[in-house]
Amino acid sequence: MSTGKLIGVGVGPGDPELMTLKAMRTLGEADVIAHFAKAGNDSHSRTIAARHLRAGITELPLLYPVTTELPRCSAGYRDAIRDFYDGAAKAIAAHLDAGRSVAVLSEGDPMFYGSYMHLHVRLAARYATEIVPGVTGMSGCWSAAGAPIAQGDDVFTVLPATLPEGELVRRLGEADAAVVMKVGRHLPKLRRALERSGRLARAIYVERGTMADAKMIPLSAKPDNDAPYFAVVLVPGWEDRS
Amino acid sequence: MSTGKLIGVGVGPGDPELMTLKAMRTLGEADVIAHFAKAGNDSHSRTIAARHLRAGITELPLLYPVTTELPRCSAGYRDAIRDFYDGAAKAIAAHLDAGRSVAVLSEGDPMFYGSYMHLHVRLAARYATEIVPGVTGMSGCWSAAGAPIAQGDDVFTVLPATLPEGELVRRLGEADAAVVMKVGRHLPKLRRALERSGRLARAIYVERGTMADAKMIPLSAKPDNDAPYFAVVLVPGWEDRS
Repeated sequence: MSTGKLIGVGVGPGDPELMTLKAMRTLGEADVIAHFAKAGNDSHSRTIAARHLRAGITELPLLYPVTTELPRCSAGYRDAIRDFYDGAAKAIAAHLDAGRSVAVLSEGDPMFYGSYMHLHVRLAARYATEIVPGVTGMSGCWSAAGAPIAQGDDVFTVLPATLPEGELVRRLGEADAAVVMKVGRHLPKLRRALERSGRLARAIYVERGTMADAKMIPLSAKPDNDAPYFAVVLVPGWEDRS
Repeated sequence: MSTGKLIGVGVGPGDPELMTLKAMRTLGEADVIAHFAKAGNDSHSRTIAARHLRAGITELPLLYPVTTELPRCSAGYRDAIRDFYDGAAKAIAAHLDAGRSVAVLSEGDPMFYGSYMHLHVRLAARYATEIVPGVTGMSGCWSAAGAPIAQGDDVFTVLPATLPEGELVRRLGEADAAVVMKVGRHLPKLRRALERSGRLARAIYVERGTMADAKMIPLSAKPDNDAPYFAVVLVPGWEDRS
C-alpha cells in the first residue's frame, strides 16, 4: 500500500468566495481534513471552508496549546509550540502511512506566514506533498480598501510592528510600499515611526480585513487606544508615474 | 440611468483552477470583459479566464503600444504609456456611462504590480469600483517550488533586479525572505549580490512559475546565459524556529 499525500490548502483571507476552484476540488477529494484552532475556539480556516467539506469526512483538529501563562520569547513557550507541531505532524503521518490523503486548511496562503509550514518541513522529506496557493490576508485587505499597493520597480516590504522604532523608521523610509503586521499594542510606536518616515498621511489602518464587519480608516483618524493583535497597517506606494 | 461598476478581477498566477469562486461569478455577471495584451499577442489573463467567459460577451481588448524603439526610461516611452492608459480609461468610461459593468482581467492580484491600477486611479473617483483579489504570481511560484517563504516576525521584501548591485546586497542582507523580480539580463549581477549577502545557497530560480512547463532549479545550478525578463528568484526565509 502506498502512503497518502500531504496537501497544504490555502482557503484565502476570510470570504468563502475567495477560495480557489482548486482548493474546492482538493477538499472534495481528500480523505482527511486537518485544521488549526486555539483550544476552545472554532477553527477560522474550517469556518471559511465549511461549505465545501463532504458530509461525514474525517476531520483532524490541531489545537494549539494554551500558553498564555508563558512569555512568547521564553524557552518554555518555544518548547510547548515545538511539541505541539511534533505531535500534529505525527497525527498526520499516521493517516498518510495508512494511505489516506490529508488536506491541511490554511488561512491565506499556506507558505506565507502560515502554520502549515511547520508541518511541511517535518513531513515533506518522507511523503508526497502538494501546495494549493491562496489569496493572502494582505491582498484581501488592500483590495477591500481599494488601495493600489505597488507598481513597476517598487520595493515592497512586510514588517512586523514588533521591530524597534528606529528600525521601523528606517525600513519604512526605504520601502516604496509596506504592510505592517501584528499592530496590537505597538500602535503608538508605529504611528511615530510612520510620522518620522513621512508615511503617516498615506497609512491605512485595517481590522478584520475581509470580514463583513471590516474596519478601514486612515491611520491618522484612529486613536491609539485599542488595536487588536491582528490589525494591519497598509502603506500604499502608489504615485502617479504612468 | 445609473452608471456601471468597474471591477478589477484577479485571475491568479496562470493555472485556471487557481481562480477564485468570486472571480468566476463576477465574470459570469459582468456586461463587458476588458483585458490587456501586447499588440499582436494573446492576452495572458484572457487565456486563464477563457472557460468562464459567456458566449457572445462584449470584450474590450486593451493593447499596449509597441514601444520597443523607445528606451523604457525615456520621456517618449512614458508619454506613450500614459496616453495608452488614458485611452483605455476613456474606452472603459464609455461603457460605464452607458450603465454597463466592466470587469478588467488582471493576472495575479489586481492591486499588486498590476496594470489594472492605472485604470483604477483614473476612474475610481467617478465610478463605483470593486476589487476581487487573486493569488499572486509569487505565491504560485513558491507553492510550486514547495518553499516555505516567511514565518512569524520575518521581514519579507519584494525587490526588482534592476537595483544597483550594492543596493541588492544590502537589502537582501536585511530581509529574512525575499522575492526578486524582473531577473532577465540582471542575472549575473543578482547572483553576485546573493553571494555577497550570504543568500546564494537558498536561492531558487523560477521561470514560468505556475505554467505546466515551469522551470525551478537552485540558482547555483542555473547558468548566467539566458534568463527571460519575467523570471523570478525566491530567497526563502525558513529556518527551524518552531
